[in-house]
Amino acid sequence: MAKNKFAPRTSPPSRRSHNNPVGHVIGIDIGATNMRIALADTNGTVLAKWATSTKRTSSPKMVIQQIGTGVNHLFRQASVPRGSLLAVAAGAPGITDGDAGLVFATSFLKGWKNVPFARLLESALHVPAAVENDVKLAALGEHWLGSARGNGNFVFLALGTGIAAGIFVNGQLVRGTNYAAGEVGYMVVPGTSEAPVKHGMPGSLESVIGGDGIGKQWLRACNGTQNSQPRDLNATEIFARAASGDRFAKSVLDHSARILAYAVYNISVVLNSSLFVLGGGIGMSVPLLKATRKILKQYDEPALPKLITSRLGQDAQLMGAIRLALDQSESHANSRR
Amino acid sequence: MAKNKFAPRTSPPSRRSHNNPVGHVIGIDIGATNMRIALADTNGTVLAKWATSTKRTSSPKMVIQQIGTGVNHLFRQASVPRGSLLAVAAGAPGITDGDAGLVFATSFLKGWKNVPFARLLESALHVPAAVENDVKLAALGEHWLGSARGNGNFVFLALGTGIAAGIFVNGQLVRGTNYAAGEVGYMVVPGTSEAPVKHGMPGSLESVIGGDGIGKQWLRACNGTQNSQPRDLNATEIFARAASGDRFAKSVLDHSARILAYAVYNISVVLNSSLFVLGGGIGMSVPLLKATRKILKQYDEPALPKLITSRLGQDAQLMGAIRLALDQSESHANSRR
Repeated sequence: MAKNKFAPRTSPPSRRSHNNPVGHVIGIDIGATNMRIALADTNGTVLAKWATSTKRTSSPKMVIQQIGTGVNHLFRQASVPRGSLLAVAAGAPGITDGDAGLVFATSFLKGWKNVPFARLLESALHVPAAVENDVKLAALGEHWLGSARGNGNFVFLALGTGIAAGIFVNGQLVRGTNYAAGEVGYMVVPGTSEAPVKHGMPGSLESVIGGDGIGKQWLRACNGTQNSQPRDLNATEIFARAASGDRFAKSVLDHSARILAYAVYNISVVLNSSLFVLGGGIGMSVPLLKATRKILKQYDEPALPKLITSRLGQDAQLMGAIRLALDQSESHANSRR
Repeated sequence: MAKNKFAPRTSPPSRRSHNNPVGHVIGIDIGATNMRIALADTNGTVLAKWATSTKRTSSPKMVIQQIGTGVNHLFRQASVPRGSLLAVAAGAPGITDGDAGLVFATSFLKGWKNVPFARLLESALHVPAAVENDVKLAALGEHWLGSARGNGNFVFLALGTGIAAGIFVNGQLVRGTNYAAGEVGYMVVPGTSEAPVKHGMPGSLESVIGGDGIGKQWLRACNGTQNSQPRDLNATEIFARAASGDRFAKSVLDHSARILAYAVYNISVVLNSSLFVLGGGIGMSVPLLKATRKILKQYDEPALPKLITSRLGQDAQLMGAIRLALDQSESHANSRR
């Protein structure tokens, strides 16, 4: 038989692949209050999940330790040999240089500044590692398996304590010159503050429709009124009350929806994206979705933005991390061929 | 990028390239008041230019006739054999599907609706033709030879009667799902109208800092005052007066610069572009540039947008058209290999 010169070359001398033809990856979602880790096979099927609190977590070293604990737990839980791990990827809540694996800064995990997080992960887990901004990862997750599956022109808008967007244009993730693309929490629209924002402070848009901003709106709506509702409701609870007829809550919902509609419209006139996917704790609120759609409907020039909620919900970032780990594993294998 | 739902146009047989190893291309800038045409060699060197008024031009047929006249004139003027023409490209002032060569609509050339302009050009000139939105072409020109040479992440902002942007992200032009990316004249910022815009009417941002908007600001600043300045100044004249100390003009300049700064800032928080290039009749105003920079300087979170004026000036669109014609000629040659 003629020798086939196009036969695939032997795979990298990964000690692992011989014993484990089916490898695994780890995806990590580092949040302000929780860290979630998932173990998946190379098809992207999640085999096990693990979570822990990050409320008392601060230094990168502590995060790496928590990850180590979680990873060990996941391999035991899934009864998968530890040696089958091919790559790992993590999402961080802050401006992140995915190329260099650096987390520049994050307001949630105090004291992080130019942390070479990908390298720390590689040292700890002995496999190729990648790191990316958490909202960009969520967009990657939605693009892979969620509401924007295969859509090359969409915006994932995360509404929670903070507000940020993960943007796909021409089939690619938009990172921006300083890796700060999608920091739309700073946008100014009619109804937000026009004042410049000081370093470390919430942006103009966040101040009105981020978690704390909506809480403040609620307090203002209640103050000096006969409204006997509890004062310490979160945004989702306020919007749910609005949906059941509370007129004070409805005024907060309507105002929030209008501000959100302006932000979506402004992004839309820049990018003409085909789809806006709302995610994050507040973004998943159905009353907010409905109220925002109602306002946006009038803003149909030059093109009407289409608005839906995330299909992956709180798993969007985790699934994006798994996708990035799979990409990392593949590009590592290719580079060794 | 949007999926091309139109069948690819059959390119005409290029009888010419065999006889003329050194070929030529034609770039066309169709404006609301003028049409400008340039003949260039395959290095992009402009050999001759021609211009005519479009004030009385309406139908696509009239435009094609004017182009035919101009092209004949240019070949005679440059003493170049007509048979050396390889490709032609035109910029149109309206939403344009560059893939299918369709001009959807333009508010300047009345009655244009889904005009297959690339096909009309090919029929008239017997060479491959391309068409693109004029502001996107200007961005292409700046990217090729102007202020954003080789910069893959920048925004060209055209300020004139209307306002629109040509956007590069990850080294590619952003067209958007309905080819309406960059229609930032519709943006809402503090100080613009919040009301939805009716079809065919100027956008919120345009209404304040487009040519007519600035004219109206000037009238308001003059009304009921002792200001003896002429009422019918254009924006550039008003801004020049502001620079020489007229306080009424300065109030118009300051307000316009603030609104422009908000728009630039909002685009910047979406894309984190490295550079904003101001072009168009109003965008080239140095007093406007300086006043806008001064305001923007305070808006440095999360990243300070860098603002300059166009190096190509009124030639940006024409040079972009030449670049597109060269691309068209090259891709046609490649497809025949």
